[in-house]
Amino acid sequence: MNNSKLNTDNSKLLFVVILAGGSGTRFWPLSRETCPKQMLQIVGEDTLLRQTIKRIEGFVPPENTWIVTTEDMAQDIRFHLEPLGPVARSIRIINEPVGRNTAPAIGLAAVYLRHISPESIMIVMPSDHAIPDRDQFQADLKSAIRGAEENRLVTFGIKPDRPETGYGYIKVDRQGTIRPDKLLKVERFVEKPDAPTARKYLSDGNYYWNSGIFVFKTSKILSEIQTHLPSLSSTLKEIEVFLFKPNKFNEPNEPNKLNEPNQLNKPNKPNKLQSRPALCAMRYAEIDPISIDYGIMERSSDVLMVPASFHWSDLGSWTALDEILEKDRDGNILKGNTIDIGSRNTTVFAGERLIATIGLKDMVLVDTPDATLAVPKERVQEIRKIVETLKRRGQEEYLLHKTVVRPWGSYTVLEKGGGYKIKRVVIHPGSKLSLQLHRRRSEHWVVVSGNAKVTRDGETYLVRTNESTFIPANTKHRLENPGEDLLQIIEVQNGDYLEEDDIERFDDDYGRVII
Amino acid sequence: MNNSKLNTDNSKLLFVVILAGGSGTRFWPLSRETCPKQMLQIVGEDTLLRQTIKRIEGFVPPENTWIVTTEDMAQDIRFHLEPLGPVARSIRIINEPVGRNTAPAIGLAAVYLRHISPESIMIVMPSDHAIPDRDQFQADLKSAIRGAEENRLVTFGIKPDRPETGYGYIKVDRQGTIRPDKLLKVERFVEKPDAPTARKYLSDGNYYWNSGIFVFKTSKILSEIQTHLPSLSSTLKEIEVFLFKPNKFNEPNEPNKLNEPNQLNKPNKPNKLQSRPALCAMRYAEIDPISIDYGIMERSSDVLMVPASFHWSDLGSWTALDEILEKDRDGNILKGNTIDIGSRNTTVFAGERLIATIGLKDMVLVDTPDATLAVPKERVQEIRKIVETLKRRGQEEYLLHKTVVRPWGSYTVLEKGGGYKIKRVVIHPGSKLSLQLHRRRSEHWVVVSGNAKVTRDGETYLVRTNESTFIPANTKHRLENPGEDLLQIIEVQNGDYLEEDDIERFDDDYGRVII
Repeated sequence: MNNSKLNTDNSKLLFVVILAGGSGTRFWPLSRETCPKQMLQIVGEDTLLRQTIKRIEGFVPPENTWIVTTEDMAQDIRFHLEPLGPVARSIRIINEPVGRNTAPAIGLAAVYLRHISPESIMIVMPSDHAIPDRDQFQADLKSAIRGAEENRLVTFGIKPDRPETGYGYIKVDRQGTIRPDKLLKVERFVEKPDAPTARKYLSDGNYYWNSGIFVFKTSKILSEIQTHLPSLSSTLKEIEVFLFKPNKFNEPNEPNKLNEPNQLNKPNKPNKLQSRPALCAMRYAEIDPISIDYGIMERSSDVLMVPASFHWSDLGSWTALDEILEKDRDGNILKGNTIDIGSRNTTVFAGERLIATIGLKDMVLVDTPDATLAVPKERVQEIRKIVETLKRRGQEEYLLHKTVVRPWGSYTVLEKGGGYKIKRVVIHPGSKLSLQLHRRRSEHWVVVSGNAKVTRDGETYLVRTNESTFIPANTKHRLENPGEDLLQIIEVQNGDYLEEDDIERFDDDYGRVII
Repeated sequence: MNNSKLNTDNSKLLFVVILAGGSGTRFWPLSRETCPKQMLQIVGEDTLLRQTIKRIEGFVPPENTWIVTTEDMAQDIRFHLEPLGPVARSIRIINEPVGRNTAPAIGLAAVYLRHISPESIMIVMPSDHAIPDRDQFQADLKSAIRGAEENRLVTFGIKPDRPETGYGYIKVDRQGTIRPDKLLKVERFVEKPDAPTARKYLSDGNYYWNSGIFVFKTSKILSEIQTHLPSLSSTLKEIEVFLFKPNKFNEPNEPNKLNEPNQLNKPNKPNKLQSRPALCAMRYAEIDPISIDYGIMERSSDVLMVPASFHWSDLGSWTALDEILEKDRDGNILKGNTIDIGSRNTTVFAGERLIATIGLKDMVLVDTPDATLAVPKERVQEIRKIVETLKRRGQEEYLLHKTVVRPWGSYTVLEKGGGYKIKRVVIHPGSKLSLQLHRRRSEHWVVVSGNAKVTRDGETYLVRTNESTFIPANTKHRLENPGEDLLQIIEVQNGDYLEEDDIERFDDDYGRVII
């Protein structure tokens, strides 16, 4: 009863800040630069980011859900949210000009939040963790909010079930924290231990894994930043002035107008005088990267911990799946089109292509349409070296996926050859692409399912299944699915330059005209 | 001098019989049902079959080169030979109705050969072995022919360099064979030994690996078959009567007309009375499968052996490549688009897709456009189980390759979806497909390189790069490359049935009208 009262009273002051700037390489080749781990569906029914948003549904209003990400990823994140429906459009996205780890990202969100609601409470969550128990999570969150209301920094600790050396630990002081709620006083944060120490922590009982989920007042975290990270604090203050002090680049502080693309990221105009947003972005880029754990939590004496009653995994690598996903009786996790004879403790992530395995032991094998990885579990840390080598070799195509998701559907590059490129383009019912033009390529479209409404050079006509049309270069055109079924076309491009940046947009449902 | 004399005198009586009926599964997924090992380029500059033919070039005239294969594979073999040019068309193909191992296949070839040249000498060679040293091979062949002229069965023995348990051995009797040439008397053939026995054989010095290459007179092998395999002998005599005794189904014995499709394989006509060719095929199918080694060589007391001076591998499995292909300093064989960190003694066969490997040990990883295999070297024998499982599951698509080679070029299925199929079709300069018609699909063709000459419903027109055309269902059409450059088209098929057998051919450069 008390709980539900708290929820109702405070919901307007509660904000969820989801950190979605990570672009890790640890799940390559499934994760790519434009499709980081949070956008993958590796466990559960949806992608990790959308699961994260659903996890707090009903707990805070959708407009109080904010996502902090980098400018590079913001548009993809926006597209990625589309399947959530109307909720997606209420979510606010804060763009960092560049990633500077979690303390600056949280500080930036706090700067924005303070101007909307000085008394607000921030629930800070990573976007790429697995937490299957939503109800338990929300119940624990209520305990944490109570701690935050007492002006404390609150974190969530996970009871270890193994001597894990890959996580930081939180030591709680049970003596000093005899409270009726679940809140425990944190004695200290400790770095990733070696194996004997981890075993000691496990048997001690007062050590928890650091989950990376935090709850605090906006004002509290800003004052802690001032105390422990004064340089970050002063940069944030500068940025705050740029953002919210009336000037010729922006409007006076009006929370309702605080929507993306935010002021921080206005493109640097090519005039001689640097614009304030550009200065602002420059200042942010100069911040030293530092994590909230290391920068604040380890230094503050004012931290409480809720021992989590939910299951949790940070999905730090392919081997983390062993703790989350169901295995067959030989310890294997076999996903997709696989066929196995006698493997043990092996994880195979396949798609539509067939992956056949015989007698593998403690291996990870991941297949995607254009790249396959095979690695023993004990060496998954080295996957990043593969990504580095690809960059060095200039094989950057393996840092993008062949299928690119767009708000109107998706496209898949089926083949690239000399002077041509073939795509399958899928358009959702009722959706349309932007009115656009290509300078250096023509396009043949063959409709293989559904009906296409095509606009070409001002003329509009229908192209039905099994019909085709031709779009010459330098011709304004638009593709639309007017029906209720999926529209699929095969696009054969011809030209001497076939990259995605040969596009001029004139009208777009998704606000991409200027991009 | 003596050698060259022999070559000149006997070349018209010399015939090479290449056994190409094998459709093994040991190189899956690179080998498939319609692309067995002999059609793969796994070592050297060309496929194993074409290497085999080149190996005897200049030694016998092309028209004296015969290939024995099964009816199912004959057409694909014929297409496969095309790159050899005019030589390809001189080669004769003998079709077995079904494969019955080497003794019946050699017996069948001998039946045909006796009618062309009763005094002929047969050089019998597998089509899928690696022999890099052509000159040495031909020199050894001359020794063997001398033995055959003395009416002996002659085989080639490979000096062992390791205690291999995967091969049969030949024991020679050095005492009784003090001859000026290289011919040694064979004491006996022995089965695959266990490891201690193999070590004993290696140190003994009188044991050789059985290479599966034989030289004998046609009349000699037929008389040995009569002695040791009387049942096979009598069936072959029956077949001989069917084939060469004048009757309403065939012409009197005229060697010049003995060309494929041979009489043995005329389709069974649906009349009540069985035709002689059909009876003939039925009789062949009833033969018990038996190898020439087990059926004749092990039983005959009349065998000589040439110790091979050439390198040789039977390429019995993926691990056989370790003996043939060059390795990097960590013992790895990395082919195609690979990236590796710290693997050892590992073989990776990649194509255009990227295969990334980390820390693999003693593994084989093979990638093809639609299937990937990962297996430890010590378990490569189990690959056949994968193929069996695929058959049982009905996943037969993995028994064919996505790219199908045709005499006019090739086609690759890029994608199959509901109601559509996309192919890239490549047509050699000057080549054309058959005049054909599809009942249940229409086709859109987009020319992406070269120029296409299209015949549609009697009308002929040119389709240039970046142009397209449409072939409705039930419309006679033909595609031709009239230019000197490669013609590439993207074909988008639409229809409710999109299999290859929806085709009616009216005119074909490759004699496939009746097929």
